[in-house]
Amino acid sequence: MSNTLGTLYRLTTFGESHGPAIGGVIDGCPAGIELDLAVIQNELDRRKPGQSKITTSRKEPDQVEFLSGIMDGKTTGTSIGFQIKNTNQKSKDYSHNKDVYRPSHADYTYDQKYGIRDHRGGGRSSARETANWIVGGAVAKHLMKEIKITAFTSSVGNIFVDKPYQEMDFSQIEKNLVRCADPEKAQEMIDHIAGIKKQGDTVGGTITCVIQNVPVGIGEPIFSKLHAELGRAMLSINAVKGFEYGSGFCGAQMKGSEHNDLFNNDGSTQTNLSGGIQGGISNGMDIYFRVAFKPVATLIQKQNTIDAAGNTVEMMGKGRHDPCVVPRAVPIVEALSAMVIADLWLQQKTRQ
Amino acid sequence: MSNTLGTLYRLTTFGESHGPAIGGVIDGCPAGIELDLAVIQNELDRRKPGQSKITTSRKEPDQVEFLSGIMDGKTTGTSIGFQIKNTNQKSKDYSHNKDVYRPSHADYTYDQKYGIRDHRGGGRSSARETANWIVGGAVAKHLMKEIKITAFTSSVGNIFVDKPYQEMDFSQIEKNLVRCADPEKAQEMIDHIAGIKKQGDTVGGTITCVIQNVPVGIGEPIFSKLHAELGRAMLSINAVKGFEYGSGFCGAQMKGSEHNDLFNNDGSTQTNLSGGIQGGISNGMDIYFRVAFKPVATLIQKQNTIDAAGNTVEMMGKGRHDPCVVPRAVPIVEALSAMVIADLWLQQKTRQ
Amino acid sequence: MSNTLGTLYRLTTFGESHGPAIGGVIDGCPAGIELDLAVIQNELDRRKPGQSKITTSRKEPDQVEFLSGIMDGKTTGTSIGFQIKNTNQKSKDYSHNKDVYRPSHADYTYDQKYGIRDHRGGGRSSARETANWIVGGAVAKHLMKEIKITAFTSSVGNIFVDKPYQEMDFSQIEKNLVRCADPEKAQEMIDHIAGIKKQGDTVGGTITCVIQNVPVGIGEPIFSKLHAELGRAMLSINAVKGFEYGSGFCGAQMKGSEHNDLFNNDGSTQTNLSGGIQGGISNGMDIYFRVAFKPVATLIQKQNTIDAAGNTVEMMGKGRHDPCVVPRAVPIVEALSAMVIADLWLQQKTRQ
Amino acid sequence: MSNTLGTLYRLTTFGESHGPAIGGVIDGCPAGIELDLAVIQNELDRRKPGQSKITTSRKEPDQVEFLSGIMDGKTTGTSIGFQIKNTNQKSKDYSHNKDVYRPSHADYTYDQKYGIRDHRGGGRSSARETANWIVGGAVAKHLMKEIKITAFTSSVGNIFVDKPYQEMDFSQIEKNLVRCADPEKAQEMIDHIAGIKKQGDTVGGTITCVIQNVPVGIGEPIFSKLHAELGRAMLSINAVKGFEYGSGFCGAQMKGSEHNDLFNNDGSTQTNLSGGIQGGISNGMDIYFRVAFKPVATLIQKQNTIDAAGNTVEMMGKGRHDPCVVPRAVPIVEALSAMVIADLWLQQKTRQ
Repeated sequence: MSNTLGTLYRLTTFGESHGPAIGGVIDGCPAGIELDLAVIQNELDRRKPGQSKITTSRKEPDQVEFLSGIMDGKTTGTSIGFQIKNTNQKSKDYSHNKDVYRPSHADYTYDQKYGIRDHRGGGRSSARETANWIVGGAVAKHLMKEIKITAFTSSVGNIFVDKPYQEMDFSQIEKNLVRCADPEKAQEMIDHIAGIKKQGDTVGGTITCVIQNVPVGIGEPIFSKLHAELGRAMLSINAVKGFEYGSGFCGAQMKGSEHNDLFNNDGSTQTNLSGGIQGGISNGMDIYFRVAFKPVATLIQKQNTIDAAGNTVEMMGKGRHDPCVVPRAVPIVEALSAMVIADLWLQQKTRQ
Repeated sequence: MSNTLGTLYRLTTFGESHGPAIGGVIDGCPAGIELDLAVIQNELDRRKPGQSKITTSRKEPDQVEFLSGIMDGKTTGTSIGFQIKNTNQKSKDYSHNKDVYRPSHADYTYDQKYGIRDHRGGGRSSARETANWIVGGAVAKHLMKEIKITAFTSSVGNIFVDKPYQEMDFSQIEKNLVRCADPEKAQEMIDHIAGIKKQGDTVGGTITCVIQNVPVGIGEPIFSKLHAELGRAMLSINAVKGFEYGSGFCGAQMKGSEHNDLFNNDGSTQTNLSGGIQGGISNGMDIYFRVAFKPVATLIQKQNTIDAAGNTVEMMGKGRHDPCVVPRAVPIVEALSAMVIADLWLQQKTRQ
Repeated sequence: MSNTLGTLYRLTTFGESHGPAIGGVIDGCPAGIELDLAVIQNELDRRKPGQSKITTSRKEPDQVEFLSGIMDGKTTGTSIGFQIKNTNQKSKDYSHNKDVYRPSHADYTYDQKYGIRDHRGGGRSSARETANWIVGGAVAKHLMKEIKITAFTSSVGNIFVDKPYQEMDFSQIEKNLVRCADPEKAQEMIDHIAGIKKQGDTVGGTITCVIQNVPVGIGEPIFSKLHAELGRAMLSINAVKGFEYGSGFCGAQMKGSEHNDLFNNDGSTQTNLSGGIQGGISNGMDIYFRVAFKPVATLIQKQNTIDAAGNTVEMMGKGRHDPCVVPRAVPIVEALSAMVIADLWLQQKTRQ
Repeated sequence: MSNTLGTLYRLTTFGESHGPAIGGVIDGCPAGIELDLAVIQNELDRRKPGQSKITTSRKEPDQVEFLSGIMDGKTTGTSIGFQIKNTNQKSKDYSHNKDVYRPSHADYTYDQKYGIRDHRGGGRSSARETANWIVGGAVAKHLMKEIKITAFTSSVGNIFVDKPYQEMDFSQIEKNLVRCADPEKAQEMIDHIAGIKKQGDTVGGTITCVIQNVPVGIGEPIFSKLHAELGRAMLSINAVKGFEYGSGFCGAQMKGSEHNDLFNNDGSTQTNLSGGIQGGISNGMDIYFRVAFKPVATLIQKQNTIDAAGNTVEMMGKGRHDPCVVPRAVPIVEALSAMVIADLWLQQKTRQ
């Protein structure tokens, strides 16, 4: 249901950005998995606000506390509860939003859906929720040590990386603020975001994710196809507007004779327009996909909008917002990928 | 799970293209809904093979038989079983495929996943399954009479409609073989597909879908956001490679100041780059999205491939395949949309 | 949800007793399982009406037809659709019930719940549905060949078997009409039911079920405990009023010093008041439980009741009803047990 | 799945008795419900250890902290996270258990299932988990203010209340330590438990629960029948061995002519052997059922048992255990009932 992701490996979450804590429960994690808590915290640090000049200046330590399901550093097979305390809430900052519906935010829809809304910092619609996913994904990665999940920024605004991922050096990704695998493009993107920030504006972008060493057979036709579950997960991220895998939208312009991936004798394929998935099932080739993020809706500019009574009001976002979500969304894309793969990988254990 | 779509309005399906029948069970359909069986059959007819010169020439009547859950033309609230008999199976046609893995088909992955495979006509991976979805969707449409769901072909190969949907006349869609809302482009597309067919080749395309009159408040954050459920459903369709809604991948190139949809005083918005959804919840504006289909993998051309033992073999598809799936996929996109909306619309009944 | 049983091994069903067919979809059955169709049909024959002088005289062949998911006698891992045609419907027989609410039947509650009701033969509330479960259970038994599931009639009215199951010869069960493991008690029970039938009355009873050779570790704390899932399944059977396992209600009168099962050095226990389950998980000892069935509500006697308008009317059941459901419910108890064990057995494959 | 209860109103829990905290997430609670936190805490106080001389002397304040989903005292429709800190853990107390399998406890089965076990205080198998259920149930009660759920101790060992519940004064329940609605029997039960405690022994008992003012139509055939969901929930409670509703096991001895509940003209029934449920759906009459609890397995007596290596060892429970769980289980039975009814009550909102 709405606050749970997954069937066997399941994450159930809670938390508003301005309550005492956010957190969740991981259910279905197999027993006996050794967890490296430093690795998990490091993933959170990759997502946390205030990490660089091109992200929000808001500071949150985002320290995860595990409350159950782990003994002597190993999972016990029981549910894993965790929380991340909210330490930098400044609820007063948000009082000006109480009766105002910010453009292209979820204020209006939450109010209409529930008849009530936590207006502080976006409440449940805040991207702060994604810190919970980082925890769920970081634990999932421990299940499948051989699988390598790598996401990177592939465009910001109109600046695109123009090489295929195979030609990139993934070790560059964490070496630049924007998490782009191409260092030259990275610098262009950083400069662009810095410029946008000065204007009080924001900009969108895309993330490419590559999943390597997935065994053949992962994914459950008909309605839990591997790419459909990946797509659903990615479309759950705040600001995401699109998902494509393999040849994606470009593939829709091609002919079959150009698009088919011919087999090698070992079952691998000569090309990989399929993106590592056939019929919803991994085929052993690299899985890759691309996710589109819209520009952040909060501007440090005056905008007209309406209040709950339908009156026109003028508003302006207050500091501490990201000019571009893409750099901080890179680990989120990886975390969701890890949970999706873990879930389907467990399901595959029961198929023969 | 894998053969079930939905939480409250649920479709569970079965069937291979070459068994005695395909079919399914619709669970959770409210009681007392008057069903127009002719309308349901008409939707099946829009999807069925052999309907025009640009689809496969295979003939199947695709007649749905309801087995339960309906009395005197009304739903009774109990589960609705149905079947569609397979009448044109010609299993012999497929004996040549028994030990051959067709390129960019699911033969290899099914064999690896399950250790066994129904090789006749693609077995469970056949797009014949989508006839079941048409039934599930056609019933769903009866729940929400005011909601209007319209899909149409928006590109074939490199031929794109170049007007926004608001400028199109949807009544044109069923008047041309390719189901394009723009009659001129339709003719270009038809000619293009006919040419591709002559070459024994295939071509991809895109479908745009517009959902109108959805009430505000439909969609369940965090993990059943309206667009995430739509995306998952669309990515379940055979050959789909991508999904975008609202501004989609274009939105990722924009600035926030260009992208924000400013409110009118009645809660509607002046623009609709959001695609009718904020925070995963419908906002009352039109919902629209686009789906990318790769070219059909079966070519009437010789291709090299491998058999189950890894030997190189030469193969060629035999007649009766679609040169382009897009025209027949239009009602499938609509049917899945209807099921997703129905499911979330029922869920919303419990939220306040 | 309501018409689906199970998480990984899942049965979804449909069908009213007076529609064209009942049936279902089995999802999650592993691939490569060889199915013995004669064994499956034999289970249906054990449940079918008209099998003896102490059951209803209604005749139904209850022939199962598999529609998918099986090739060359083996499961393919895809969903298994099946149907059982209704051949002996005589809808006219039930016209007298159209506006009458039979006492202790579900007529009134279905009408109130759904606002509409299929009055023919109980509609969806008919025990005919249990034939679907037989199919689901018979397939499940093929997954776990070493597990032995044996149910038998342990009481009819006030006639109880008075020996523990360990002292009984299970090969006797199918040798008497009432399916009691104790041949002498069986004769008493048969005579009692025959007498009750002559009075146009009905009588209740209990069934005991013993599940042997279940490996240690089956069952999922906290909310899918093995006995909780068995209990839920048994309480789904028409006419069931109670479930107890191991020491059951008697255990509630005991002291801990009497009730504890002390260990042998191999992990087995000296006694088995626990009924083979500790903390919701099988411990390797025999699992056993008892299920209580109320007397059938349809009497061949005049009763006063009300119609839909609240008027008092006199009614009398028409022939062809069971005077005691217990003999025909024995295979149903076994089938549900098999599905529950199969589901949890698959889940356990993912726990370490 | 295993740590989640419910479909629409869902509780997902975590926590071992000796970790930092237990807790959970309530998902699907409608928005706008005013919560009385004192009422919720009061339910926890009814369950907490150390409340009287006939319960364990262990002290835990069991203070619930809500972390999300509530604003200004009202639910917001988003998931409700909560935790209860463990304050009295004394892990040292349990070091003697590390390699010992206590008889009729879940030590052995957890070790076999997961290959690892938190031995401190029973780990996840501890009844401490039920404090989480109290929270889930107490919130659920706020949804349905008109429904009255009353449980009471109906037997301890061989001491049974011998009047039907209709003749009892429910206001007496909280006035005695054993929570029995019959004050005279209550005193007998208290004396009996006190005597058992002196012997270092334990004793079982039963709880009866009565649910009043449930509207007609609650419960989802076929596999979420109201009584089946109640039964499953009750069988999830530690130490429960049986469940019966309405006439229960006694009904299995009756004739149909004795058992049928004849209708009054308003749809109510003259008798209520059905226990307020027909066909799995509430019929508007009182729902009542009975739950059997085995005696607590921890004795303050020497017992022989085995360790993980299969060696015989002698062990003796250490203080601070309940001689009889029944008095503290009364609010647990109520809480689970409330969650089951809430879940099915929400589902019924979508059925017509």
